[in-house]
Parts: sequence; C-alpha cells; structure tokens
Amino acid sequence: MKKVDVSLHGMYKSILEGYLLTSSEHSLYEAQKFSRELIKESLSPEEMVNLHVTVVQELIPNLPNEVLVANELLLEVMVGYGLAYREHQSLRDRQK
Amino acid sequence: MKKVDVSLHGMYKSILEGYLLTSSEHSLYEAQKFSRELIKESLSPEEMVNLHVTVVQELIPNLPNEVLVANELLLEVMVGYGLAYREHQSLRDRQK
Repeated sequence: MKKVDVSLHGMYKSILEGYLLTSSEHSLYEAQKFSRELIKESLSPEEMVNLHVTVVQELIPNLPNEVLVANELLLEVMVGYGLAYREHQSLRDRQK
Repeated sequence: MKKVDVSLHGMYKSILEGYLLTSSEHSLYEAQKFSRELIKESLSPEEMVNLHVTVVQELIPNLPNEVLVANELLLEVMVGYGLAYREHQSLRDRQK
C-alpha cells in the first residue's frame, strides 16, 4: 500500500475536525474538493478508507471497541477495491 | 446510486455480526470472498462504504454522534470514487 502523503493526512484531519465542530455545508464542499485531489493523486479507495479510520481514531476519543473492530472488517473488504483501482489506472495509462 | 441488493446487505450484516462476536480469521476470509462478490456485482466503493455505514448503525447500538457525523463526511469523499469506478467500467467495457 502506498504511504499516504503527510499533507493529505493533514488536509483530511482538518476537514473532519471542522465538520465535527460545525456540521457545515462548507466542510462538505471541502470534502468534495479533497475527493478530487485524491483522484488526482491516485490514492485508491482502500487508502482513503484507511486514512479515514486513522483520522477518526485521532479525533474521536473513547471510540467504542466495536467501531474499531467493524473498521477492520471494512478495510479487509476494501482491499479488493484497491486492486480494482490499480487495474483501472493501468487500463487508463495504456489508452493514453 | 444503484440500490444495494438485499442479499448483499444480508451477507455483509451476517459477516460483520460474526466478526463483532468472534474477531476470527474466518470472518476476515469471508470478507475477502464478499469483496470479490462485490467487484463481480459492480458495486462501487462508494456503495460499499454506504452499506458498511448502514449495517454498523443496525448492529452497534448507541453509536456516538461523532461517529455518525464522521461517516457522513467519508461518504461525501467517496462520491468521487463512485464516479471513477463508473469510468473504469466504461473503459473496460470498451476494451471488450
């Protein structure tokens, strides 16, 4: 798995922190911009879910253990999407 | 967004329920098989995250509100991956 860029981690943490505090439309708009940035940086959906899980653990104290366990299962399922994403990129590169 | 098949919902709920109870390797193996099933059924990564969020709310009572809010933001980011996935499918279909 590609190592998530430190700045992407900082960006997502800041957007999520803002959304937890305000639940504002502005944060959702920031999330859409961030999503486009991720696609540009070729971060796979698996890596994005991993980033979310990491940042949630940093920002929300005393998460119920069941949430952590459920996140592990989601990450296991997302591995398949990581592989499909790499295939997509290789198809796209061949068409260039 | 494509409506998630009732049987996929039931399958994921049963796997997650098992994993919450046992944290066993067997559940992780089931998750890998489920992931291959999703790719075969062309469910996008956005739809998978949506399924996870729904099932977590059904199985884990009294989720902290912050977890629900964080999930909303993740879903907003995943929309971009839903679009990229559809593009991937259309590229693949053109190559057939």
